[in-house]
Amino acid sequence: MNILYIMFDQLRFDYLSCAGHPHLQTPHIDALAARGMRFTRAYVQSPTCGSSRMSSYTGRYPSSHGVQFNSYPLRVGEWTMGDHLRKAGMGCHLIGKTHMVADADGMQRLGLAPDSVIGVRQSECGFDPWIRDDGLWAEGPDGFYDSKRSPYNEYLKDKGYPGENPWNDFANAGIEGDDIASGWFMVNADKPANIAEEDSETPWLTTQAMEFIEQAEGPWCAHLSYIKPHWPYIVPAPYHDMYGAEHVLPVVRSDAEREDAHPVFNGMMNNQIGKTFSRDEVRAKVIPAYMGLIKQADDQMGRLFNWLEKTGRMQDTMIVVTSDHGDYLGDHWLGEKNLFHEPSIKVPLIIYDPRREADATRGTACDELVEAIDLLPTFLEVAGGEPASHILEGRSLMPFLRGETPDWRDYAIAEFDYSTMPLCEKLGLEPKDARLFMVTDKRWKFMHAEGGLRPMLFDMENDPDELVDLAKADGHQEVIDMMYDRLLEWGLRMSQRITLSDAQIKARRGTSGRKGILLGVYEADELAPALTEKYRGPVPK
Amino acid sequence: MNILYIMFDQLRFDYLSCAGHPHLQTPHIDALAARGMRFTRAYVQSPTCGSSRMSSYTGRYPSSHGVQFNSYPLRVGEWTMGDHLRKAGMGCHLIGKTHMVADADGMQRLGLAPDSVIGVRQSECGFDPWIRDDGLWAEGPDGFYDSKRSPYNEYLKDKGYPGENPWNDFANAGIEGDDIASGWFMVNADKPANIAEEDSETPWLTTQAMEFIEQAEGPWCAHLSYIKPHWPYIVPAPYHDMYGAEHVLPVVRSDAEREDAHPVFNGMMNNQIGKTFSRDEVRAKVIPAYMGLIKQADDQMGRLFNWLEKTGRMQDTMIVVTSDHGDYLGDHWLGEKNLFHEPSIKVPLIIYDPRREADATRGTACDELVEAIDLLPTFLEVAGGEPASHILEGRSLMPFLRGETPDWRDYAIAEFDYSTMPLCEKLGLEPKDARLFMVTDKRWKFMHAEGGLRPMLFDMENDPDELVDLAKADGHQEVIDMMYDRLLEWGLRMSQRITLSDAQIKARRGTSGRKGILLGVYEADELAPALTEKYRGPVPK
Repeated sequence: MNILYIMFDQLRFDYLSCAGHPHLQTPHIDALAARGMRFTRAYVQSPTCGSSRMSSYTGRYPSSHGVQFNSYPLRVGEWTMGDHLRKAGMGCHLIGKTHMVADADGMQRLGLAPDSVIGVRQSECGFDPWIRDDGLWAEGPDGFYDSKRSPYNEYLKDKGYPGENPWNDFANAGIEGDDIASGWFMVNADKPANIAEEDSETPWLTTQAMEFIEQAEGPWCAHLSYIKPHWPYIVPAPYHDMYGAEHVLPVVRSDAEREDAHPVFNGMMNNQIGKTFSRDEVRAKVIPAYMGLIKQADDQMGRLFNWLEKTGRMQDTMIVVTSDHGDYLGDHWLGEKNLFHEPSIKVPLIIYDPRREADATRGTACDELVEAIDLLPTFLEVAGGEPASHILEGRSLMPFLRGETPDWRDYAIAEFDYSTMPLCEKLGLEPKDARLFMVTDKRWKFMHAEGGLRPMLFDMENDPDELVDLAKADGHQEVIDMMYDRLLEWGLRMSQRITLSDAQIKARRGTSGRKGILLGVYEADELAPALTEKYRGPVPK
Repeated sequence: MNILYIMFDQLRFDYLSCAGHPHLQTPHIDALAARGMRFTRAYVQSPTCGSSRMSSYTGRYPSSHGVQFNSYPLRVGEWTMGDHLRKAGMGCHLIGKTHMVADADGMQRLGLAPDSVIGVRQSECGFDPWIRDDGLWAEGPDGFYDSKRSPYNEYLKDKGYPGENPWNDFANAGIEGDDIASGWFMVNADKPANIAEEDSETPWLTTQAMEFIEQAEGPWCAHLSYIKPHWPYIVPAPYHDMYGAEHVLPVVRSDAEREDAHPVFNGMMNNQIGKTFSRDEVRAKVIPAYMGLIKQADDQMGRLFNWLEKTGRMQDTMIVVTSDHGDYLGDHWLGEKNLFHEPSIKVPLIIYDPRREADATRGTACDELVEAIDLLPTFLEVAGGEPASHILEGRSLMPFLRGETPDWRDYAIAEFDYSTMPLCEKLGLEPKDARLFMVTDKRWKFMHAEGGLRPMLFDMENDPDELVDLAKADGHQEVIDMMYDRLLEWGLRMSQRITLSDAQIKARRGTSGRKGILLGVYEADELAPALTEKYRGPVPK
């Protein structure tokens, strides 16, 4: 068995036809859902790329692995998906984006050469990179946001696209007269990207995946990790004008949200992103482009799945389709992600398992509270590895795929660290206090804010759109207390005893006595003679 | 400035004359206290050697570094005292015990050779070992408890002590007829150890320290880490009979403690150790030997301090005297340590700073809540390093030494993991549930137990001997709630963002825009032209 672990970036849970979108048809992803299981309550552990991904790749909460925001280096030695799977005999490969930043200081302290096999794995989040491209070749007066090489830019240059950064000038820009019409400016989102469709990012990476799979010797896990539909919001023809104003869903927001808003929510509604996405013309430009990007992604899934079918891989490969977080798209007066409303923190999750044991659940949906950190334990079970519950904080989803009804978690957790955002300073907080925690069950969603700020609370049953923050007023104290009890339980979890498994702990019990550690013994004859042999007898001469 | 960081093992906070012991005179340690500051509420972070020490050596709570009990390997790459001090230009050396177990799996995964400089530091808890001897050369039917070499045993053999394990047969055994009378059996505690006093462990290690200091080039930090007065409880003449029954303090315990006792407390009272130490003849044998070991230690401190005075080191060396935990010695029906009563979790702490800035506080005591993890930040300040508050969870004690009154913590935390003890199984708990947390302030001491067990609560003001567990009965709910609030606050602390300092976090704010990441921008002219330059202009040809 192999695993094809497909991640899109910033794909909202509800922008697929199988998840109920009325205008956006995604037949290929839907078909995978029809052959697999769709999880309707899949939460990522942070509403931002880097942190969410490090949780998915380590199987641990952000507070456990320490990467609480984008571009925080992942500490050297942290166990990753690659470490766990390789130990179980399965290769683990990267095709696309991780948003991982290596712990260069830590590597240097341990003398790890960045170009050694071990050094590369430490730098690449444990993956063996077939190709890595994080897909954000932004450039400003202080240089590139990302100083690594871009295989995608190299590909475009090889194909004859001119200039230093064709990702920027062609793949993510339209054209207006002789000038580029950059996708960085959302006014241009309705223009076609100035690139042949087959050269754009999603088809390019799909081809890379097929090239990898063609030569791969199993068992392998391949993380096929697309940058799109992440911004810049722009897509080549014919996808740029497939959708129009009539396909844009009504915005989900209310004036009441702006009254007495939680200080963090308020700050985000009133920053540049929130203000821009609250404008109707912005949504009218961006959402059709976003839908076009997803439509293109679905077509590429069709291309990929057909090829897998033809090559026989569909029969021996588990396929996962998910995302690293969603996109507010103007809902709740917000753009981007960074808070815990469903459009931001919930993701699509489809798992197709070709094995007979999953036959009973094909085409069904699972409504249990699933976390992105459950994927790695799932993969480890597929690979036949020992569960590593002393390191991994999620749980295998295989029981659901087999149609079992395991005793499952009562709540899901997510975290967000906004200490690098100007908002932290505006609120007068120290970095350690600029942290948010979500606790959600099927009925209530709760947010705790450090730094002495009040919590937020939504009734997901009676207010599924999360428009009424119940923590603004008194009341619901019992629910809030319950959520704080859960947060305490979670906060005291054992997350760092990573060097000893539970089995090793149990095996240690009572062993020290047989190695001579005698505690509370007054006289030798209290113990079996074998245990005290070294402590009796004549004085050596 | 150098730092001499002296740690005894299992030295109770109240077994020094400067701390009020009426019969045990420790004039040399007292003299250091008279020239420095004595901390009366110094708590270790775990009442067991390995875990407490890893907290002291990393400046972090057990749940943060993961070594929650003895012999749990410290994860590779964890920052240690040596890492912090060397970065600040100060060497960091070991003379004696650490009880550290290297993360051999982690080192192998990172390709670290155990005999390289880096590998040794990873194996030795970040110290450069002048000499390491953990001082527990126990041996049973399954072999040695500790498979490393013992420099102390090598020393004894060089001196002509016969046999394979003179630590066991001479340093920790008396003699009865022609046979060894092992210190492992407490009935022998009143016998003199069958060794020349100057060859016993404490003088031997003191000599090692002087040899180190003689050749050391500063600035250095030396961790002089004695095994004694840790068991086996036996001491050479003349210390073996300096104290007798008339010097044994009345036992601190009550019959009420045994009624409705907390299940963990109950389990410990009724295990072999608790039962043995509850016998009067055991206390009568052990306590005089324990006092003799401390008296010998104090005499060695006199020898060392005199030598430091003579060599001029007393003028440029901060000296710290502390312990890794205490010893119940039969109080509370317990032996050893492993719970949170004061005899177990509180330690002596004396800091002598020769610099003028500490003149105002010489000979004074500080009653604030101090944690063992405060020492590393103190040392880092002495070394002139940048505070590393994103890694270190304690706080520098220098303000107290300077006579300042810093805004200080309201509570101290300690933890204990008994998952490797048979008690865990007896209580039907999984390893992750066999964990205890202490929260103490100056008035109340609280213990939370995972696994659904009830808490414990003591009123330290009205019941300083901790004989009445108030959590047995209803009531004190407000205090218990306050303690749970503190535990929640502590549980949510940021402990793993070790790859980025607060200063680095702050410096990142607003930088991505100047590297081309434009968020929420509808049209180019919303921004300064410099920020959008790369996104405008003619399409490259």
